[in-house]
Amino acid sequence: MEKNKKFVEAITPMDVDFAQWYTDIVKKAELIEYSTVRGMVILRPYGYAIWENIQRYLDDRFKETGHENVYMPMLIPESLLQKEKDHVVGFAPEVAWVTHGGEEKLTERLCIRPTSETLFCEHFSNIVQSYNDLPKLYNQWCSVIRWEKTTRPFLRTTEFLWQEGHTIHATAEEAKEETLRMLNTYADALKNFLAIPVVKGRKTDKEKFAGAEATYTIEAMMHDGKALQSGTSHYFGDGFAKAFDIKFADKDSQLKYVHETSWGLSTRVIGAIIMVHGDDSGLILPPRVAPVQVVIVPVAQHKEGVLEKAEELRKSISSYARVKLDASDKKPGWKFSEYEMKGVPVRLEVGPKDIEQNQVVLVRRDTREKTIVPMDELETKLKELFDDIHNSLYEKALVRLENMTSEAADFESLKEAAETKPGFIKAMWCGKLSCEEKIKEEAGLSSRCMPFEQEEIADTCVCCGEKAEQMVVWGKAY
Amino acid sequence: MEKNKKFVEAITPMDVDFAQWYTDIVKKAELIEYSTVRGMVILRPYGYAIWENIQRYLDDRFKETGHENVYMPMLIPESLLQKEKDHVVGFAPEVAWVTHGGEEKLTERLCIRPTSETLFCEHFSNIVQSYNDLPKLYNQWCSVIRWEKTTRPFLRTTEFLWQEGHTIHATAEEAKEETLRMLNTYADALKNFLAIPVVKGRKTDKEKFAGAEATYTIEAMMHDGKALQSGTSHYFGDGFAKAFDIKFADKDSQLKYVHETSWGLSTRVIGAIIMVHGDDSGLILPPRVAPVQVVIVPVAQHKEGVLEKAEELRKSISSYARVKLDASDKKPGWKFSEYEMKGVPVRLEVGPKDIEQNQVVLVRRDTREKTIVPMDELETKLKELFDDIHNSLYEKALVRLENMTSEAADFESLKEAAETKPGFIKAMWCGKLSCEEKIKEEAGLSSRCMPFEQEEIADTCVCCGEKAEQMVVWGKAY
Repeated sequence: MEKNKKFVEAITPMDVDFAQWYTDIVKKAELIEYSTVRGMVILRPYGYAIWENIQRYLDDRFKETGHENVYMPMLIPESLLQKEKDHVVGFAPEVAWVTHGGEEKLTERLCIRPTSETLFCEHFSNIVQSYNDLPKLYNQWCSVIRWEKTTRPFLRTTEFLWQEGHTIHATAEEAKEETLRMLNTYADALKNFLAIPVVKGRKTDKEKFAGAEATYTIEAMMHDGKALQSGTSHYFGDGFAKAFDIKFADKDSQLKYVHETSWGLSTRVIGAIIMVHGDDSGLILPPRVAPVQVVIVPVAQHKEGVLEKAEELRKSISSYARVKLDASDKKPGWKFSEYEMKGVPVRLEVGPKDIEQNQVVLVRRDTREKTIVPMDELETKLKELFDDIHNSLYEKALVRLENMTSEAADFESLKEAAETKPGFIKAMWCGKLSCEEKIKEEAGLSSRCMPFEQEEIADTCVCCGEKAEQMVVWGKAY
Repeated sequence: MEKNKKFVEAITPMDVDFAQWYTDIVKKAELIEYSTVRGMVILRPYGYAIWENIQRYLDDRFKETGHENVYMPMLIPESLLQKEKDHVVGFAPEVAWVTHGGEEKLTERLCIRPTSETLFCEHFSNIVQSYNDLPKLYNQWCSVIRWEKTTRPFLRTTEFLWQEGHTIHATAEEAKEETLRMLNTYADALKNFLAIPVVKGRKTDKEKFAGAEATYTIEAMMHDGKALQSGTSHYFGDGFAKAFDIKFADKDSQLKYVHETSWGLSTRVIGAIIMVHGDDSGLILPPRVAPVQVVIVPVAQHKEGVLEKAEELRKSISSYARVKLDASDKKPGWKFSEYEMKGVPVRLEVGPKDIEQNQVVLVRRDTREKTIVPMDELETKLKELFDDIHNSLYEKALVRLENMTSEAADFESLKEAAETKPGFIKAMWCGKLSCEEKIKEEAGLSSRCMPFEQEEIADTCVCCGEKAEQMVVWGKAY
């Protein structure tokens, strides 16, 4: 009984301590376990299964649009990392250095990849000669290391799993198109697979990726109003191509530099799922990403025919949904709590009375709504329910995003909003770094992005009062 | 035209220089490209796609037998690596050491995992309390690093991709069963998916995994008669459990140590595919693992209706096979060579005459046999052809394995066979390390395994002449 007990121990309510609520869920839903290696976590089967589903979904989207997977070395020689000067300035301070191989001291130290632009560039320079070789649309699934000072499971860890896309194109236009295509792929994945609405936009120069000409981002809003940057797509122009000498003979026989992009999405989005959908009973998983979409909990399972019927249902459901039957001898109440903690979207209860009446009871995790469903309508009803849950999770998150977004026209209102209204704040910005830095220092807000959907909140900069045409979404961020 | 040329440049024939033949294929079939990082290669799209297919196949098998995927940290603290004394002696000399994180020098150095027993053990000790928690059947897909002195693509590289299964059980019997179950899973995968026959057996103590009580192996034979250890499965008994204090309360309320296994298979098997099936025109891929199973090469594609028909065929075939249409303006002959180099199992040719007669031409990569097939029988014929090719590749490899296996009853015959007969040699062994070492030194042969299928070649040890009941398969190995 001791083993079940953890599932019904209440977790810290999110209003009491949001950070603790988050930590309780990642542990009690058995998503992760801490390791002894500083800032690194263990992805347990349930947490990893969520990532596998995200991987499969995105990988299919990438391949549909002509991308191919490759695998680059995990280690980068220091001299290679240094080839693009902005890039090395951005990443060198946070890499792990390998100095010894076996018993020998290396003549040049190697860093564990924090990201793989430099490796891809070197490879591209070796395999590309003519316009016939373009574009190259590559993607890599791997883990990377960034030596973070403070870490939190999924949100910021020394090691994390991600995919990094790297593409090269004959023209700037094609590369720009690709950059936005992949940003939209991310936004669609969050909307259609994870039921998370995002704000799409461009990062300011201060916030862009080291070495990029432009960085685009999708920003999601957590329960507490804070932003989580959930995926980024970078346009590099020909900067890396020049640093790494990636040239091709174009149709006009001229040697030209390629134009490059990269884009990445990581296990961080699992943090977004938790903090966008979860509640005080635990995780709530959108059905499309849930490792278990339906859990069958038999009622009075010792009675004749109950377990047989439950197994029959499991078998039939398994042909169209990810289903689990819990026939253990825990009490149904314990089971209910366990699968609520784990965020299983639908619980199916079946007992002697249901069998008699040829029906089952379906209970939604998100609203706890119960429906009695005739056995022969089960497949249709379940599929409808999955879509209903998905849509209602998305709508709920969208309403929150909208309700928790305010506007500020001058610096005093901005500071007041930063203190009193958790969430995003729309305000105009003149484009000067000094204003962006002042807003960070005095209001504690960073620029999340310059959204594609612009509004004219005012005609002057919220900070300096000078003429401003750019609306920025500001916020506190993970 | 320059770009296509590489495909028809002959590769080094295997009889002339087997090592060069191998290197030519991995490069010209575009499986890998060398990187500037010593001993690390880049898996290009075609090479990585082969690995993805192997992954998908094995992952499904693992999950069918109740295994779950997890992800452990990539770095292991030195003190953790040292906990099991045989293990550290085996691995410490060949690991890469991280000594600095960002700008700080670490107080304890960390190695990049060469294998993850120690991490799994530490995790198991934290999550297992009672018999209810057992077994834990975990698997991890990742990359590992072993600081090798000499490297060859796929066969031995500083970094390689693999899966490592780690399981713990309540009893020794269950753990032993698991060890053999997974060895059989590997042997079946090689037979049924890669068309490669293997010899299954147990490693001698000298050749077993550092820290294991018993190591089981599948040994495949390459074209040149050398062995390639293609997958191993280890039984640890309770050795690691004692070193890491992994105990559970059993049904009888006694605290007991768990019994443990691990098993791994890596990108090395891609080397086996090349060296078992390839020929002097390049790679030959068994259909089940081939990224492209059928390539459509239109004949006289400028003629009306040819490309339309080719595209129609591509679309229809794509519903049941992995198909590619090459509609580029290269000449058919160039295309033939290219896809032969890449080992695509079936080439489908379609031209004006075929369209008129409502037929296509199928050409097998392995035998080059041509068949004319009516359009309406295409699906059936293609599927049959895939099975035929698979079976005939397997048979051919099996015949070679049998023909290139000899026997030796005394040391002189063993030495002579080692010099004159490439392949495996069956000989009796008394079990003494000194004999095993002498055979290595004087005949240049290592013990590949003690096969499950034993024969009585003689009743005395091939080396010392003392009484021997154990038959060993000896050979030269990659």
